[in-house]
Amino acid sequence: MSDKTLAELGESESLRRTIGRLVSSDAVLVGPGDDSAVVSLSENRFVVTTDSMIEDHDFRLDWSSGFDLGFKAVATNVADLAAMGAKPIALVVSLAVSKDTKISWLEAFADGLSQALVELAPTASVVGGDLASSDKAFIAVTAHGDLESKAPVLRSGAKPGDLVAVGGTLGKAAAGLALLRSGGSAKEAFDDLVSFQLRPRPPIELGPVAAESGATAMLDISDSLVKDASRIAEQSQVCISINSSDLIGFAAVLEQAALRLNAQAMDWVLFGGEDHGLLATFPNTNQVPKGFKVIGTVKPKNQDLVQLDGSAIEARGWDSITG
Amino acid sequence: MSDKTLAELGESESLRRTIGRLVSSDAVLVGPGDDSAVVSLSENRFVVTTDSMIEDHDFRLDWSSGFDLGFKAVATNVADLAAMGAKPIALVVSLAVSKDTKISWLEAFADGLSQALVELAPTASVVGGDLASSDKAFIAVTAHGDLESKAPVLRSGAKPGDLVAVGGTLGKAAAGLALLRSGGSAKEAFDDLVSFQLRPRPPIELGPVAAESGATAMLDISDSLVKDASRIAEQSQVCISINSSDLIGFAAVLEQAALRLNAQAMDWVLFGGEDHGLLATFPNTNQVPKGFKVIGTVKPKNQDLVQLDGSAIEARGWDSITG
Repeated sequence: MSDKTLAELGESESLRRTIGRLVSSDAVLVGPGDDSAVVSLSENRFVVTTDSMIEDHDFRLDWSSGFDLGFKAVATNVADLAAMGAKPIALVVSLAVSKDTKISWLEAFADGLSQALVELAPTASVVGGDLASSDKAFIAVTAHGDLESKAPVLRSGAKPGDLVAVGGTLGKAAAGLALLRSGGSAKEAFDDLVSFQLRPRPPIELGPVAAESGATAMLDISDSLVKDASRIAEQSQVCISINSSDLIGFAAVLEQAALRLNAQAMDWVLFGGEDHGLLATFPNTNQVPKGFKVIGTVKPKNQDLVQLDGSAIEARGWDSITG
Repeated sequence: MSDKTLAELGESESLRRTIGRLVSSDAVLVGPGDDSAVVSLSENRFVVTTDSMIEDHDFRLDWSSGFDLGFKAVATNVADLAAMGAKPIALVVSLAVSKDTKISWLEAFADGLSQALVELAPTASVVGGDLASSDKAFIAVTAHGDLESKAPVLRSGAKPGDLVAVGGTLGKAAAGLALLRSGGSAKEAFDDLVSFQLRPRPPIELGPVAAESGATAMLDISDSLVKDASRIAEQSQVCISINSSDLIGFAAVLEQAALRLNAQAMDWVLFGGEDHGLLATFPNTNQVPKGFKVIGTVKPKNQDLVQLDGSAIEARGWDSITG
């Protein structure tokens, strides 16, 4: 039956088969199948974020399986919740794929959603979805979180004197992208790095931990360490100063792959996106939680948004329009 | 400046200009510009629904302006909240358009979102968005509502003996689509009907009113009266019996356009979608609120899901995959 296509089964039945593979959580008062879902919270606020991925702009169907795309769609969105200090509780997923898409691909996509929830956000579930046909595949996810009585951690709260710290990996997803682009055998030799591009694993549980610990600002690094640091700098009216010596550990694990591709590992660390690690600022060392590594300090506002070893560094990174 | 394109301005600046045109409401604790938004509710549950529209499947850029599409994206989604009995409070919008799209088009899109909120859902605002480039335009909206201590009205609660009633219009959007497809001068002669296709105006305020009045089941009519009635019938394990004599008023206002196109007005009423009116069931006449028109009764489950004047009628209507 799973060899049938979307066009053969129609929307309702295809959606039923896909959504039917997903597990619900206790927070879901009304799940998929009605006009809307109803979700419970611990309080009378909710956190919401949305992000989309488009074929040939954000992914290629010959690189990413349905499972990979389901996994990544969850990972990138729950990272935005974590970056506010929120616990993920519910997602809705809009998917448009070609009419010829096999139901088995849709099932793999649903399994990727499920696996990412199990690994990254076990308190969350998919509560609704929308399925349509489109020549190019399109995935839009909206994710919802619960702040559990905490104040949200904004981008605008960093203060001079704060420490700058990273939770999660830097540069692995960019290395994975370079390996995929290189074609050939390099991507098999470094399949662990490729997997960070296809199925990023941001440290979601560190978001609420950082909020509890008194993080003054936080975001998830989607475009690049430097570009996202510049966003905190801009919104907090400060300068983010990074020490390259604190990044050596991130670069070291990429060196072999960089050598193979004639690339610079430190470039991936500074200017590569899509690991979706957390970049946060904390008032002092005692407040930096386990799982975060200090990489710099917050300086008073000056002409530079971001500095590396005391010199200005340009905020290069991914732009979803210009690439 | 608005003659610049998306590619010339990039994502952040284009998004800023678009989102900047939208007005925030009191419920928005953290609005656009951070990783996520934070929205307040009257209680610790929220209602959520998502729906997408794809160029050349759900709309044509030569028929719909940016304003029309923004308006319709809001209308179709808040109708799904109303159908649960919820008050709309917040939306997030994912938009993908060609890189060559003028910023003025994006501004018109934002103005369409705004106008629909003003007219249909003045308690709601856009709290976040995502902008990307894509060869074919894609719009995905997720809408959030507040049940304000009411039980959600599901599709599964209709009981034999209940009255079946419609809030809003039937067949106008389908007539509008037929007029657009006919080309030529007919569409100018009936531009009021065309406007129901391009900018549907569902009676959002009637959703919470129906819930307060004790509606036992409700949904918004997106695919067709008969097809959506069959959904209530299926989920409530009943038969929905409709009287054609109660539909005459809906057909009458379409007769002139039907004559012009050699079409049947009653077909638009029964099998046309996209007006997004509310179809609800109520225990008795006293409970049917002003704004709803009784069109039939709920019968015990039998071999027919939907009957017209006592005979089975096929659940024809729109399917977002097969058309």
